[in-house]
Parts: sequence; C-alpha cells; structure tokens
Amino acid sequence: MEEKAFQEFYPEELSYCYGCGRLNDQGHQIKSYWDGDETVATYSPKPFHTAFPGYVYGGLIASLIDCHSTGTAAAAVYRAESRAMDSDPPLRFVTASLHVEYLNPTPLGVPLEIRGSVKEIKERKVVVESKLFAEGKLCARGEVVAVLIPEHFLPSKP
Amino acid sequence: MEEKAFQEFYPEELSYCYGCGRLNDQGHQIKSYWDGDETVATYSPKPFHTAFPGYVYGGLIASLIDCHSTGTAAAAVYRAESRAMDSDPPLRFVTASLHVEYLNPTPLGVPLEIRGSVKEIKERKVVVESKLFAEGKLCARGEVVAVLIPEHFLPSKP
Repeated sequence: MEEKAFQEFYPEELSYCYGCGRLNDQGHQIKSYWDGDETVATYSPKPFHTAFPGYVYGGLIASLIDCHSTGTAAAAVYRAESRAMDSDPPLRFVTASLHVEYLNPTPLGVPLEIRGSVKEIKERKVVVESKLFAEGKLCARGEVVAVLIPEHFLPSKP
Repeated sequence: MEEKAFQEFYPEELSYCYGCGRLNDQGHQIKSYWDGDETVATYSPKPFHTAFPGYVYGGLIASLIDCHSTGTAAAAVYRAESRAMDSDPPLRFVTASLHVEYLNPTPLGVPLEIRGSVKEIKERKVVVESKLFAEGKLCARGEVVAVLIPEHFLPSKP
C-alpha cells in the first residue's frame, strides 16, 4: 500500500466531506489506499452507529462505500493518466448513483474493510465496485457511478 | 398527517437505529408519517453534513432515504393488514438493497423533505421509492427493497 491516502491529496476546499474530508472534524475521515489493482480503506464504526444493537447501521455502510468509491474513481483516473494525485488540475468525483446490497448483518465492534475495484473507466465517468468485509466476511457489496465534478459545483467558482 | 411517527411505535429494543431510533441520542432520529398514500419525513442536516461547502453529503441522503423507506415498508404492511402499529407481533424491516440516484446537488441549510411511496408489497418484502426534495426541487431518488427482519436478527433472541 502507498503511504499517503487519496483523500490527503484533495485540495483544501474539497476536504470538508463528512465521509472523507480530512478537515471535517465531525466526519468519518476515511482514508483510501491502493493495494495492487484494488483500493482499500478501513473504518471502525462508533458504538452509536447501530442498526439494531450489535449490528452496524446500513446508512453508514452506504456512506463508506460511497466515499471510498469516489476516492477510488479519482485515484484511478490519475493513475490511468500517469499523473501524480497532487498535480493540477485536481480531479474530484461525485456520485451519480449508488447501489448497495446488504448481504449479511455487519457486526459492530470490529474494523470494517472496504475494498474497491474499477469496473469501467472513462475520463469523466468511473464505475467502481466496493465490497465491505467484517472479520473477512463479505457483508455488503456496492456499485458507484462516479462522475467528474462539474466545474460550477466547485466552491472556488461561486 | 397522523400525529405519531412510525418510529415512535417501534419497540424499545429496536429503537437504537442511528438513522431513526428515538433512543439513539447521537443519531438522526428521523420521523416518518403518512400523508395520504405517501409517507413524508423532514430532516434538517447539520452544518457539518457537507459534501462540498454549501451542499449536503450524499451518504446522509442515502441514510435518510434508507430509514424513511424501511419505516414506510413497515407502516405499509400494518396498514395493509389493518393492524395498529403498536399491535403484536411488531413488524420491522431491514434493507436488502438500496439504490440512490443523485439528480441535483442538495443545498445545505434548508430542511429536506423525503417522500415515500410503496411500489410493491408482500408480507415479507416491500419495495419503496423515496424522493428527496430541497425547497421543492427533486434532488435525489431512491429505491429500497425492504425485507421483514429475520427473527434471529432481533436483539431479544440472542
């Protein structure tokens, strides 16, 4: 795995995402890395992230899959273009659609591993499959269609 | 609209969901009501629920759609069976799959309205479509396949 997470390369104004922004003190601050051709993130839910006592809330699972997948999309395009992740212009993807299948109840109290793989890659659209595991068991499978962030969306262009 | 939210009928042991449990002090505590044949919930995101500054985090949108839809599923089955929501045995649904399309950026700082409608209803499986609006504008559309919670899942049956 590489040393620095994808999200640590995001420019400051794009680093306030509740799911993965390193500057959002209230958020999950997930960090995603390459691991060969896959990407991986690990997150330990808080005790209050419950669905039913003992199990992880499905909305959190959707969030982790979402942010890890958009991060994967960006990293994959940088890699496909042989560009460093801190080169200009910054590439940042947003979610066009998110699909999550909940396959098994996800136990609370253990780290969750989210592994992403790129299913389809174009310059402005990337499809990522992310699987979420607890203690090695596949608990959820997600697919995210990520699109390059439209310029009018960017905070620097009001 | 009826006076009491669906989630206020859930038995105590099923009321700790981070999205909609009335007993989860850290959670969103969303409340869903009938409005004719549709269901409605309103939620005001917190200032830190950002994607990019000024816009709502997609994972929160997925969460709101998820919890409102499973609540709608339960309420719809009670209604179809002409049963009061506090009658036994309690019906509680979990998400088998969640699909969200993000149609427009969702502005932060205004209440969001989530409106659900039942697309398909069986005793143990309900498909719900939920749309999320900000200031009357459709921002996201979701579909949830909700299934009756398996008994072994219930906290009272370890």
